[in-house]
Amino acid sequence: MSIYSHQTAPTQFAEAAGIRFAYRRFANRRFGAKIDVPLLFFMHFTGTMDHWDPALIDGFAQDREVILFNNAGISSSSGEGPTSIEEMAKHAAAFTDALGIKNLDALGFSMGGFVAQQFTIDRPDLVRKLILVGTGPRSGEGMTSLTPEAQEIFGAKYDPPDELWLRVFFTPSKQSQAAGRKYLERQRARKENRDPLSNEKVAPAQIAAIQKWGAPAKDPYAYLKKIPQPTLVVNGSNDVIVYTVNSFILQQNLPNAQLILYPDGNHGAQYQYPELFVEHVTQFLKG
Amino acid sequence: MSIYSHQTAPTQFAEAAGIRFAYRRFANRRFGAKIDVPLLFFMHFTGTMDHWDPALIDGFAQDREVILFNNAGISSSSGEGPTSIEEMAKHAAAFTDALGIKNLDALGFSMGGFVAQQFTIDRPDLVRKLILVGTGPRSGEGMTSLTPEAQEIFGAKYDPPDELWLRVFFTPSKQSQAAGRKYLERQRARKENRDPLSNEKVAPAQIAAIQKWGAPAKDPYAYLKKIPQPTLVVNGSNDVIVYTVNSFILQQNLPNAQLILYPDGNHGAQYQYPELFVEHVTQFLKG
Repeated sequence: MSIYSHQTAPTQFAEAAGIRFAYRRFANRRFGAKIDVPLLFFMHFTGTMDHWDPALIDGFAQDREVILFNNAGISSSSGEGPTSIEEMAKHAAAFTDALGIKNLDALGFSMGGFVAQQFTIDRPDLVRKLILVGTGPRSGEGMTSLTPEAQEIFGAKYDPPDELWLRVFFTPSKQSQAAGRKYLERQRARKENRDPLSNEKVAPAQIAAIQKWGAPAKDPYAYLKKIPQPTLVVNGSNDVIVYTVNSFILQQNLPNAQLILYPDGNHGAQYQYPELFVEHVTQFLKG
Repeated sequence: MSIYSHQTAPTQFAEAAGIRFAYRRFANRRFGAKIDVPLLFFMHFTGTMDHWDPALIDGFAQDREVILFNNAGISSSSGEGPTSIEEMAKHAAAFTDALGIKNLDALGFSMGGFVAQQFTIDRPDLVRKLILVGTGPRSGEGMTSLTPEAQEIFGAKYDPPDELWLRVFFTPSKQSQAAGRKYLERQRARKENRDPLSNEKVAPAQIAAIQKWGAPAKDPYAYLKKIPQPTLVVNGSNDVIVYTVNSFILQQNLPNAQLILYPDGNHGAQYQYPELFVEHVTQFLKG
């Protein structure tokens, strides 16, 4: 067990399926994690390991091992990013197998939540509990392509560029924007061995994958019955990137899911209420 | 500060608006409540103070004062039960004024959630935070009268009669029914100075009030903007008495609300997961 924080954890590499996967695996506790099931994080659209909020990662690393990774083609991982969620899930399974992991909890955020769902269906043996944040089911509401709000937000210019996330993750309210600036500060704090930003091929490939996942289908939510694992679904009250109603749909169609929606929250409500979120998820993982 | 438990708290009386209100007010802590804002409970259809789950009441009474009461015409309170939620809220305000309370947190369950909403709008000065459990907004989905499921469940015979609540509050699943039997045991445990059951005038009057609350209206959810208080909305995933979607509607229309839905839960999910519920509400009240 390596004792590091989000800022100090070294980037390591594992080879599988012809990909060199970059990852960071650590706990904060001096004498090892109390809980032996690691928590694996599935990242959102175009994000790298450095886009996770240190307040969350270090919060969870207090009593368990956390594993961040870049999937194929992302940032410091080799390969090309595939154009389907299914292939992303396969790459993730190859990565966890390369680490020799037999049991894990999975947390997927936004597009990472799509991958985490597919990963859980593909590898039910591996996943003990699932946390789905700011995400939705296949063919969810407003998910056939980027929402109009997402198109406007991702299409605009920001200076500095990472202020994009103030609009993607937070509502326009004063309180939410203030929380957003704190998130940005936390997220920028790691200076050494930061992940390079994803290259220009990543966004179009991921958009293609997202559109396939969101495409209309017959009886689209039936597949959720294949996820019997206890699941916690979390979102903000006003997610304009993956509409909040999709979290309700997930909860209503998953066999064993709890839903938590936070007030005055957009797509990244877990970064707006990091302590409460860590508390809720920890309760869920212990329960 | 009186130190009692749900089972031992004496029934006291307060006179106001021509009504003699029966109530119980206590904390469990030997040296008084840590938190000085009492938590006032608004009861469901036909229920008395003894229908509350001791696991909840004693759980909350660990660090705060709890106040249970019978509204006008209910059980050991005098008067006649009114046929509108508005009048119930007025009676509740008269009762709390009689106790000299200046600040409280309110928890309303089912019909009690309707009354708690109206009470909060009428007396914004009094209510610090609001908890709405298994309830819905005015003119909510399936709320113009009892739902078909509720009609069937309330129309059937049970032996013993209180097994009614196994079907009202719990799902048909084995786990939920087992939790329901534990709730019934806890709820039956108080033997001395139990509240008499409500008389035969209560149900028709309350049904009339519920139907007025649920009647269709133009822009029905606009009134929720009058509740700026931090609100926690809680329900089971499959409430057949007040459909679960109404909890989502409440959360989406209240200015500052958090939503929690529990898996495999019907109308009384808080009695199925009493420890988790007390933990979630306590977090919310402290936060």
